[in-house]
Amino acid sequence: MDKFSICKSGCKNFMVYKSGQWAEKVGLSPGSLIHFGESKTTETRITYMDYGIEDVYESSIEEINNEILNIPENKIRWINVYGLKDVRKIAHLCEKFQIHPLNIEDILNAHERPKYQENEEYIFISIDRQIYDENNNHFSKEQVGLVLGKNYVITFNEGDSDAFDPIRLRIKGNKSKTRKNGPDYLLYTLLDIIVDEYFVLLEKIEEKIEILEDELIVNPTPETLQKIQTFKKKMLYLNRSTWPMREVIGSLFKLESNLINESMGIYIHDLHDHIIQIIDTTEVMRDLISSLHDIYLSSVSNRLNTVMKLLTIISTIFIPLSFITSFYGMNFKHMPELYYRWSYPTVIGFIICVVTGMLLFFKKKKWI
Amino acid sequence: MDKFSICKSGCKNFMVYKSGQWAEKVGLSPGSLIHFGESKTTETRITYMDYGIEDVYESSIEEINNEILNIPENKIRWINVYGLKDVRKIAHLCEKFQIHPLNIEDILNAHERPKYQENEEYIFISIDRQIYDENNNHFSKEQVGLVLGKNYVITFNEGDSDAFDPIRLRIKGNKSKTRKNGPDYLLYTLLDIIVDEYFVLLEKIEEKIEILEDELIVNPTPETLQKIQTFKKKMLYLNRSTWPMREVIGSLFKLESNLINESMGIYIHDLHDHIIQIIDTTEVMRDLISSLHDIYLSSVSNRLNTVMKLLTIISTIFIPLSFITSFYGMNFKHMPELYYRWSYPTVIGFIICVVTGMLLFFKKKKWI
Amino acid sequence: MDKFSICKSGCKNFMVYKSGQWAEKVGLSPGSLIHFGESKTTETRITYMDYGIEDVYESSIEEINNEILNIPENKIRWINVYGLKDVRKIAHLCEKFQIHPLNIEDILNAHERPKYQENEEYIFISIDRQIYDENNNHFSKEQVGLVLGKNYVITFNEGDSDAFDPIRLRIKGNKSKTRKNGPDYLLYTLLDIIVDEYFVLLEKIEEKIEILEDELIVNPTPETLQKIQTFKKKMLYLNRSTWPMREVIGSLFKLESNLINESMGIYIHDLHDHIIQIIDTTEVMRDLISSLHDIYLSSVSNRLNTVMKLLTIISTIFIPLSFITSFYGMNFKHMPELYYRWSYPTVIGFIICVVTGMLLFFKKKKWI
Amino acid sequence: MDKFSICKSGCKNFMVYKSGQWAEKVGLSPGSLIHFGESKTTETRITYMDYGIEDVYESSIEEINNEILNIPENKIRWINVYGLKDVRKIAHLCEKFQIHPLNIEDILNAHERPKYQENEEYIFISIDRQIYDENNNHFSKEQVGLVLGKNYVITFNEGDSDAFDPIRLRIKGNKSKTRKNGPDYLLYTLLDIIVDEYFVLLEKIEEKIEILEDELIVNPTPETLQKIQTFKKKMLYLNRSTWPMREVIGSLFKLESNLINESMGIYIHDLHDHIIQIIDTTEVMRDLISSLHDIYLSSVSNRLNTVMKLLTIISTIFIPLSFITSFYGMNFKHMPELYYRWSYPTVIGFIICVVTGMLLFFKKKKWI
Amino acid sequence: MDKFSICKSGCKNFMVYKSGQWAEKVGLSPGSLIHFGESKTTETRITYMDYGIEDVYESSIEEINNEILNIPENKIRWINVYGLKDVRKIAHLCEKFQIHPLNIEDILNAHERPKYQENEEYIFISIDRQIYDENNNHFSKEQVGLVLGKNYVITFNEGDSDAFDPIRLRIKGNKSKTRKNGPDYLLYTLLDIIVDEYFVLLEKIEEKIEILEDELIVNPTPETLQKIQTFKKKMLYLNRSTWPMREVIGSLFKLESNLINESMGIYIHDLHDHIIQIIDTTEVMRDLISSLHDIYLSSVSNRLNTVMKLLTIISTIFIPLSFITSFYGMNFKHMPELYYRWSYPTVIGFIICVVTGMLLFFKKKKWI
Repeated sequence: MDKFSICKSGCKNFMVYKSGQWAEKVGLSPGSLIHFGESKTTETRITYMDYGIEDVYESSIEEINNEILNIPENKIRWINVYGLKDVRKIAHLCEKFQIHPLNIEDILNAHERPKYQENEEYIFISIDRQIYDENNNHFSKEQVGLVLGKNYVITFNEGDSDAFDPIRLRIKGNKSKTRKNGPDYLLYTLLDIIVDEYFVLLEKIEEKIEILEDELIVNPTPETLQKIQTFKKKMLYLNRSTWPMREVIGSLFKLESNLINESMGIYIHDLHDHIIQIIDTTEVMRDLISSLHDIYLSSVSNRLNTVMKLLTIISTIFIPLSFITSFYGMNFKHMPELYYRWSYPTVIGFIICVVTGMLLFFKKKKWI
Repeated sequence: MDKFSICKSGCKNFMVYKSGQWAEKVGLSPGSLIHFGESKTTETRITYMDYGIEDVYESSIEEINNEILNIPENKIRWINVYGLKDVRKIAHLCEKFQIHPLNIEDILNAHERPKYQENEEYIFISIDRQIYDENNNHFSKEQVGLVLGKNYVITFNEGDSDAFDPIRLRIKGNKSKTRKNGPDYLLYTLLDIIVDEYFVLLEKIEEKIEILEDELIVNPTPETLQKIQTFKKKMLYLNRSTWPMREVIGSLFKLESNLINESMGIYIHDLHDHIIQIIDTTEVMRDLISSLHDIYLSSVSNRLNTVMKLLTIISTIFIPLSFITSFYGMNFKHMPELYYRWSYPTVIGFIICVVTGMLLFFKKKKWI
Repeated sequence: MDKFSICKSGCKNFMVYKSGQWAEKVGLSPGSLIHFGESKTTETRITYMDYGIEDVYESSIEEINNEILNIPENKIRWINVYGLKDVRKIAHLCEKFQIHPLNIEDILNAHERPKYQENEEYIFISIDRQIYDENNNHFSKEQVGLVLGKNYVITFNEGDSDAFDPIRLRIKGNKSKTRKNGPDYLLYTLLDIIVDEYFVLLEKIEEKIEILEDELIVNPTPETLQKIQTFKKKMLYLNRSTWPMREVIGSLFKLESNLINESMGIYIHDLHDHIIQIIDTTEVMRDLISSLHDIYLSSVSNRLNTVMKLLTIISTIFIPLSFITSFYGMNFKHMPELYYRWSYPTVIGFIICVVTGMLLFFKKKKWI
Repeated sequence: MDKFSICKSGCKNFMVYKSGQWAEKVGLSPGSLIHFGESKTTETRITYMDYGIEDVYESSIEEINNEILNIPENKIRWINVYGLKDVRKIAHLCEKFQIHPLNIEDILNAHERPKYQENEEYIFISIDRQIYDENNNHFSKEQVGLVLGKNYVITFNEGDSDAFDPIRLRIKGNKSKTRKNGPDYLLYTLLDIIVDEYFVLLEKIEEKIEILEDELIVNPTPETLQKIQTFKKKMLYLNRSTWPMREVIGSLFKLESNLINESMGIYIHDLHDHIIQIIDTTEVMRDLISSLHDIYLSSVSNRLNTVMKLLTIISTIFIPLSFITSFYGMNFKHMPELYYRWSYPTVIGFIICVVTGMLLFFKKKKWI
Repeated sequence: MDKFSICKSGCKNFMVYKSGQWAEKVGLSPGSLIHFGESKTTETRITYMDYGIEDVYESSIEEINNEILNIPENKIRWINVYGLKDVRKIAHLCEKFQIHPLNIEDILNAHERPKYQENEEYIFISIDRQIYDENNNHFSKEQVGLVLGKNYVITFNEGDSDAFDPIRLRIKGNKSKTRKNGPDYLLYTLLDIIVDEYFVLLEKIEEKIEILEDELIVNPTPETLQKIQTFKKKMLYLNRSTWPMREVIGSLFKLESNLINESMGIYIHDLHDHIIQIIDTTEVMRDLISSLHDIYLSSVSNRLNTVMKLLTIISTIFIPLSFITSFYGMNFKHMPELYYRWSYPTVIGFIICVVTGMLLFFKKKKWI
């Protein structure tokens, strides 16, 4: 574990850890920076884009110096940080923009709860992305940190890519609405894309639940149950992301910050509605999954019934018959029936009667 | 996929897609218009009705031009849009009435959550209709968009028909209350009809639940369980429509907009009460359905019991008897009983005793 | 279906239906009057009572004319309407007192949710009565409409009788508190009686639940389960009545109307407490009933266990024995044991040992 | 049923019943006094204590007259009423202190919900005591009525004793904090003792639940289930007492009455915290009990499994063997094996092989 | 039980008990001091640390006298109390700092609910620590009392150690942020460490749940169920600690006290977020555990099915065969088949057919 202080200025004092777990963090000074999350090998990479009504300029940043603060007039600077490995560099960047140590901690800790914080200088939002990888049929989660300042937006991504390429394309295109609006509109479009990814996720899960439902009816196995449990867990974790997102957008919606233009109200309202819809759909899907579990149990219990019915039919028919045959298998000297001419056919007839009677009884009971 | 811009004016910039899914939408500019919903083949058709105290005039609109804004004085224009396929035409219409791109998106996206939005110019409501087709015994859902302006109401319907024919008849009739009131009263009557359709739906579902209940008592089969599950799902989806409807009417009820006359209060209150009653009834019905499930499980478990009892009775009677007969079927040389005169009748007597004893025992246990 | 307009005045326009269902009502003008409810044959009958500190006068009304508004000074008029069949007559009466068409609709529709509405002229309350018929052991529900005006109270009853006879007796008696107070006190006593009927109902249900509990322990049958389900349903419907009643009394409790004297506060508070107690008790009873269901399931599962144990004991004892006897029933020529002198007694001894061992084993397992 | 009026003054008019039930009460004038509760034979007994910083004086009251209002200056009068049988006497006492008839009704009706009511003259609190009788291991509930006036406190007890002896002792002792404080502090100490009794109750129940838990693991019987159900019910009823108590103390906590000194805030806050702790603990205990039920069901289901396994092992081993032996018990003339020298030992060997194989199979399946 | 008064000053009067239980406490004067908690043998030990920007001084306190109040200017005094056994000493210390008797009671009673109380002089917080002992794999709980004054902080620990050593180290180190900030920052760092301990606990429990999940799939035993129950209980108790902690930090967050600097807002906000995250995680874990229970039940029911299937297969195959063999074991004289040449091979062939048919049937049913 290598620790070092990245903070030389008077008022800030925090240590930085490369990677850690909660157990290691206990006892550290609040504001101590550790990158929590799967220790991805992604090198930290910083790019930025300056755009205004007239033109767009893109570049990348190797060294953090005061250049980063040098935003051309009438332009908005959108800075993208990829990979949270180089904690020192990220902390440096944040310090330039006077981001509070606790917010830097939030950016680096990928297990934080989605969060909203505003002060006079900036709005900080940390939110979860849901990524669905079609090829591997794999769902994953990534935390995205967003900082909105007077004339800049910074995005912090855990991995080497983000979901924002369509926005970059739109900005580069002429007459884009984003180009004509302030950084608050950029923030909104970023959030909108992240929220839309949730709908994609829910759509995929809904598809898979339907497949599972068919499987349940055709041939339920213990594996089906395990799949149901997996979805249950997934929904639990999804729920943990969506509810705080609602709070985040709800805080934004209050429009108390002067960094958000009042005309953004309708857009943020729309975002808020979408999140509530996501939460509603999640709830419905949880109910669906739990009723899948019920169906599974019922089908298991139905199968037990079928098995028991077969056993009972076989036993009920043959056990009495075996008694009859076993009866005439007794070796008593004085059993007059044994010597009668018609005993044997009579017994056979009796057995046929019993079997027929039994079958009619089961028919009536609708067992066969 | 054919895209094209329908927005030439400076401040609005959005692309329009013919049909799509969430997965395709991610990354589009907010306010991008896609018609979500089952891609119905309904051609977009626009009709309107101008009415006042004196007279009523009906016509249809082929081309969207400024004529549509040309509402005669002292008249209310009620515009009906059927079929959301021709996105370009609808967007054109909405632009004429200066409806916000996000609301146009809401109109076109049939999977949106019911929504209420007001500004100084208009009130926008999007709400779900519940349609019950008596012939096919089929329930379906359609989204209805409603826009209330100073002197006009616009309704957007997914399909080729709507539920509002009785209102048209009343308007055409003389002395109709609607004719004497403003567009806010028209909006109310439209909402009232949509809400009444929910009661019809609930009534039908209640009937079907009662039939199911009888079926459960007479002869429960796995198909019965599947029907229960279907109703469970239906109620889940219904719930998803009703709760936001409550919010919509609740927002309307605040009477903050100057587009709603204060005297409408008692009507909207009544509407609000009806929606709460719908929600209550839905809750009760969900409880009923879940207790149907309980009854099903109990009846399955009862049947298992019956089966087990039969098996146990048969086994308990005949297994010991078979032992006795098998006992005297042993081939030992030195078994004195085999040669006694009365052995055979004694054994028969003993067997009769055992059977009688067993039957009495089961009688006492109330098994037979 | 016979329709006719009862409204000749300019501002009101509604049609009246004799009897109908929701499905028939869709598309009717709001405020259309239909009597919902079991089409009772009760003829509509109207009586009234004028009382003051000095004296009491009782009479009945055949024709609705302005006489009905002619209330002697310093008197309170209490009008009772029985039977909602004659919709035209009731609407007439209500119009005289300028009751809003929507409230008339509420009075006639017996499936409405309990409701509170106040304006400057009157307070309208619609509430559910719970009737317990001791002779037939039958619970039923009736909607009661109450209108409180400046110097009158009107009660609308579905059936031919109401619960208010004790109040009439008290009013006729001298020095009754009701005589000394205003119409708001009368309204309170009416509500108090209706609320007290709920306690009676709950008491009866509690008794029956206790009987059911005993039955469950002594001899649970599928019929017991059906009774439990019936109570579950009853509580569900009761719940649907009580919660809105709480809202009704809660609205009354705000004392915002000038029709309610401030000194009534303590009485309405008491009423409110009683309703909360009813709701609490209903909740407790629902929990009790659902734990009855649990007991039932446990007892069913216990019985299955008992059955299985018997089967297992019998099988475990006799199946091995049958094997032994069957073993010596084989017809091999060369089975030396068959010819030994002591083979037979040895086998008998062995069988006795096995049976004893088994019984001891089951004794140890506490199965017998 | 003997009724009589105890109210001669103009503004109050109520009848008093010796004992009754809700069913009897319907139709009585609100404020009618009936003592609800188990008709205890406790004679009504009234004692009082006057205390101040200087001295303490104790006495009892036989006749209610104006003497009771004659409280020495700088003294606080604490009146204790035991037994609610003599309704007339209690009503008399209450009238002297101008207690509202509805509050008198609350005092006498032991089935009332805990309640808080304040006016300018007095604060009325009705609350439930939980009594645990160590000798009979019996839990019971008693309602306590408390009235706090400017310089007096009245306590109404259902039975012949109360929980307040320790307070009396402390008051009689010198330098007691109670002696130095007002009647509001006395009220607080009374409530504190009642709340502490809940902790005792919860402690006892917790002990018993632990005993039950051990019983469940060692030897669960249907009686255990019945005990669990009993505790479930007890917790349900306890819950019904605690939630309204929270409201009562919460109302007191608002400190709006001028009868409560502001410096009492910290004490009432503490009381409030204790009640919330009681509610929390009750919730935890309900969850514990319901998980006891789950354990019971699991253990029953486990036992069924054990029984079934034994049956299956015995059947699976012996049924095939019986087939073999029965096979060679057939009486065909032409069965060559019957006459071979080594047939018998071969069959015995085969049987031993089958048994060994079976046992190994079950061993592998971990059934034995 | 030895009691003694530790309060000689006029306004305070309370008795102190060495150890007790609720049952013993009923009837004591409120503010009576008893140390509740496992009677640890830890001797009460008091140390303190004075720190400022310049230097740090540590010492311990043997006797409580006014020296303790003598805090050097520009310094903050942090007093640590270990072990709550010496109630008299602790009460003495508290009195010096004018802590209210009820708060002293809260400090000593380790079963209190986490609590927040502020007045003009100090803020009192009582909170639960979660301790995980890695060596014994044992979870335990300890109550920590925190008092924040103008220039001091007091911590009360149940045991002989606390979690605050890292803070002490940081304070002793130069340039520590704590040294530059007021006592409110110290309080925050203390709370932060306690909250971080919850994350450690949850991490450990999550690990153990995963292990349990694997165990459930591989080989579920009744012991697994018991482990699940244990975790259920643990989560219940954890829940009881976390919810009131949220209230505590929420109260602190209001920043109403002048003892908390406004700049602390962001820190306390962060703390609040962490607690909400703890509560969320606890909820998710409770759901996980309850779904473990479901898996257990399903696996038990699956096993019953397997057992029943085996039994049914064996019985269904061999019972009919035994009937056949037993049939030809009958001793009738006149059974022609017995004497036919090919009877025996025919019967063998028939038996083989039956077995093959059965096996194919079971194969088709996917039972084998």
